[in-house]
Amino acid sequence: MAKPLASIVSAGLSKFGKREGVSGRELFVEAFKEAMERCPSLDPRKDIQALIIGQMSESFEHQCHIAPITSDWAGLLPTPAVRTEVACASSAAAIRYGVLAVMSGVYDVVLVGGVEKMTNRTTPEATEYLGMAADFPMEQWNGVTFPGLFALMATAHMHKYGTTEEQMALIAVKNHHNATLNPKAHMRKEVTVEQVLNSRMIAWPLKLFDCSLISDGAACAVITRPELARKFTDTPIQIIGSGHGSDTIGLYEREDLTSLMAVYRAASEAYKMAGVEPSDIDVAEVHDCFTIAEIMAYEALGFCKPGEGGRLIEDGVTTLDGSLPVNPSGGLKAKGHPIGATGAAQLYEIYLQLIGEAGDRQVDGCEVGLTQNLGGSGASCLIHIYRRD
Amino acid sequence: MAKPLASIVSAGLSKFGKREGVSGRELFVEAFKEAMERCPSLDPRKDIQALIIGQMSESFEHQCHIAPITSDWAGLLPTPAVRTEVACASSAAAIRYGVLAVMSGVYDVVLVGGVEKMTNRTTPEATEYLGMAADFPMEQWNGVTFPGLFALMATAHMHKYGTTEEQMALIAVKNHHNATLNPKAHMRKEVTVEQVLNSRMIAWPLKLFDCSLISDGAACAVITRPELARKFTDTPIQIIGSGHGSDTIGLYEREDLTSLMAVYRAASEAYKMAGVEPSDIDVAEVHDCFTIAEIMAYEALGFCKPGEGGRLIEDGVTTLDGSLPVNPSGGLKAKGHPIGATGAAQLYEIYLQLIGEAGDRQVDGCEVGLTQNLGGSGASCLIHIYRRD
Repeated sequence: MAKPLASIVSAGLSKFGKREGVSGRELFVEAFKEAMERCPSLDPRKDIQALIIGQMSESFEHQCHIAPITSDWAGLLPTPAVRTEVACASSAAAIRYGVLAVMSGVYDVVLVGGVEKMTNRTTPEATEYLGMAADFPMEQWNGVTFPGLFALMATAHMHKYGTTEEQMALIAVKNHHNATLNPKAHMRKEVTVEQVLNSRMIAWPLKLFDCSLISDGAACAVITRPELARKFTDTPIQIIGSGHGSDTIGLYEREDLTSLMAVYRAASEAYKMAGVEPSDIDVAEVHDCFTIAEIMAYEALGFCKPGEGGRLIEDGVTTLDGSLPVNPSGGLKAKGHPIGATGAAQLYEIYLQLIGEAGDRQVDGCEVGLTQNLGGSGASCLIHIYRRD
Repeated sequence: MAKPLASIVSAGLSKFGKREGVSGRELFVEAFKEAMERCPSLDPRKDIQALIIGQMSESFEHQCHIAPITSDWAGLLPTPAVRTEVACASSAAAIRYGVLAVMSGVYDVVLVGGVEKMTNRTTPEATEYLGMAADFPMEQWNGVTFPGLFALMATAHMHKYGTTEEQMALIAVKNHHNATLNPKAHMRKEVTVEQVLNSRMIAWPLKLFDCSLISDGAACAVITRPELARKFTDTPIQIIGSGHGSDTIGLYEREDLTSLMAVYRAASEAYKMAGVEPSDIDVAEVHDCFTIAEIMAYEALGFCKPGEGGRLIEDGVTTLDGSLPVNPSGGLKAKGHPIGATGAAQLYEIYLQLIGEAGDRQVDGCEVGLTQNLGGSGASCLIHIYRRD
C-alpha cells in the first residue's frame, strides 16, 4: 500500500432527519462540535487554517456564500473558507481538495465538510432544486426528475443483465436494517422485501422504498499532513487514495446506461494511488441514492463483475455480517441524504468503523475502508480509500 | 521575491456584455477556445488533468453541477471537474485551489476559470439572486440589497475620512475610460464626473454610475507547475503569491465599516508568500463592484494609508498613465461583472499586461501585477500576485 496522502484526526456528524427549526449553519456547528469534542488537543482557532465545505444548492435556504458563514458560526473566523459543488458529491470534493491543500504544503490542518438543509421546502420544491443537478436544456426542461433518470438506468440494467426488482429491494432491506443500529440515522425502521415491492410507485421500476431520503444534516472532518496527525490524536486514520471522475451530465450522451463511467474512472485513480485492490476493502460506504445505484456501484468499484451486482446482494456479501459490508451507516437510503453533507458523512462512518467506535454496527477487524460519492446522475464521482494508521 | 507557486501558460476571455442567446456553457467555451489558440503546443485532452470553475449562482440558468458540463462542452471529458463558490470571488477561489492542486503534485496542468450568465433574468431577479451572497436571516430578509450594503460602507467612509462623492465618481470616470480601450468590455463609453453625480440615485451616496454591470461572461487560464511552463509557452507568467481572507458575512457583525478585513488578511498572506511590498506592484485589477469598493481596496492593499483612497484617485495615481494603474481592463464597473467569471477575468487582464499584449491599454514595462477579488460585501477575499518569468 502507498504512503498516506493525509490523515483524519477527528470527525463529526449532526443528527440526520427532519430538523425543524434548525438551519444549515446550525447543523454544521452541531457536526463541528462533535469533531472538536473528539479531539481535545486541537485548538480550533489556532490549528485549523482553512475550511472547505460542500453544499449543493443555494435554493433551499436562499443562501449562497455559506463558506464564511459556517467558518463564522463555528467560531473559526478569520479562518478562510471556500465552498465546493459537484451536486451530490459536493463534500467529497471538499475532502479531495482538502487533501490536495495539505499535500501542497500551504496548509497543515484543514477542516472539510458539507451541509444541506432540505426539509424546510415542500417535496415538489426539493425535487425541482435537485433537478438542477441534471442538464437544463435536455433533461430538466423536458420534465425528467432524478427518480426518472435512475429508473432509465435500472431498466437498462434489468434488460441487459436480468437484474430484478427483488434484488433492488434487498438493498433497501439491508440499508434500513443497518440504520436501525445508527442513532443518527433519519429513518430507523426495518423494511421487508414485500414492503419495498408494494410501496408507492415513483418511476417504474423504482418504488418509494427504492429512493433515498430528503434530510437535513451536516458532517465534517479535520485532516492534517500525516506526520502531524499524532500531535492531535492517538488514532489517526490515513487517507491513502483519492479519485475524481467525470462524465457527461446528460444520460442521452452516454453510450451505455448500465455502467457509471465516472465511478470506474474515480475508482481506477483511487485504487492506483492507494496501491490496493477491490479485494483489500473491508468496509465501504457507497452512493445509494436509489437502490439500483448501489448495485451499479458494486460493479464499478470492482466488488463484482459487471452485471453481477444484483447477485452480490442476493448472496448477502454486503450485509453487516457479510464478507464486505456496504453502507453500515444505513446509507443515503435510510441514514438520509442531505445532499451536500453526504460525502463527508460517508467519511465519518468509515472513520468510526476504522477507529472501532461504530457501536452496534461495528464491522469487526476492518483495516481498509472506501467511500464512493456520486454527483447527480453520474456526471461526477469521488472516491476515497482509508486505512488504520 | 519568492519562488513561483505555479505558472500561467495561457488564458482566455469571452466578450463581456448582454450576450443574448448565448448560454453559460457556450461563454465558457468561447473563453477556452481563446486560451487554446494562444497555446498551440498544449493538447487539451492530453495535457489538462482537471478543471476548477467558479460560478456564484445556480439560479440564473436553473443549473448547478456546471463543472462536468463545462468540461464536456470544452471537449475535455473525462477530465474531472469541480466548482468553487465564494460569491463574487468564486473564480479567484478556483485559481487558488488550482495553484494548490499543482503544488500538491497530484496534477501537472489544471484549467481554472469562471462563468456567469446573468442577463437572461430581469434586474429584480438578478438583484434577488445576488442578494443570496448576503446573510439571509439578517440582511436579505430585511430587504438590504448589495447597493445598500456598499452604501453603508460608503457613508461610514465619508463620515470617518471625508471621502467625497466626487472622488467615487472619479473611479467610474477612470474605469469607463479604460474600458473604451478594451474590445471585450461590456460598456465602452466615457463618462464625466458630472454624469456620474447626476445619474439616477440607487442607494445614497451610490448613483447608477457608481455601480458595476450585470453582464454575461467567462474567463479561464491554464496553470502548470513552474518547471513545466516552458514546455507550453515562451512567455509563462508566474503566480508568486496567493492570499485568502474571510470575514463575517453580516455587516452588522463588523467593528468598523470603513475597512474590509478580509482584504487586509488576504493581502498579508499574498504579499508575504510573494516576498513583495505594495510598492513593488506595477499594475493591479481590483474589485470595483461599487466605486467605494475600489477606494477601500487601495487602502487594504497598502497602495495608500487608510482613509487616503479618495486622494489617490484624485491625484491620478491609478489612472492608466499614473504610477500604479488600477483596473486597466475597465474593471467590474465598465468591463462588466459576470460574477463567477470576474476573478479569472482579472487574472486574464494581468496576464495580458505582463506578456505585453494588452493593446491600447498596455501599461509599459510592468513586471509585477496583482488581482484582488472580493466575495459579497467582503466576507471573502482572494488576492494573487504575478510576475513575468
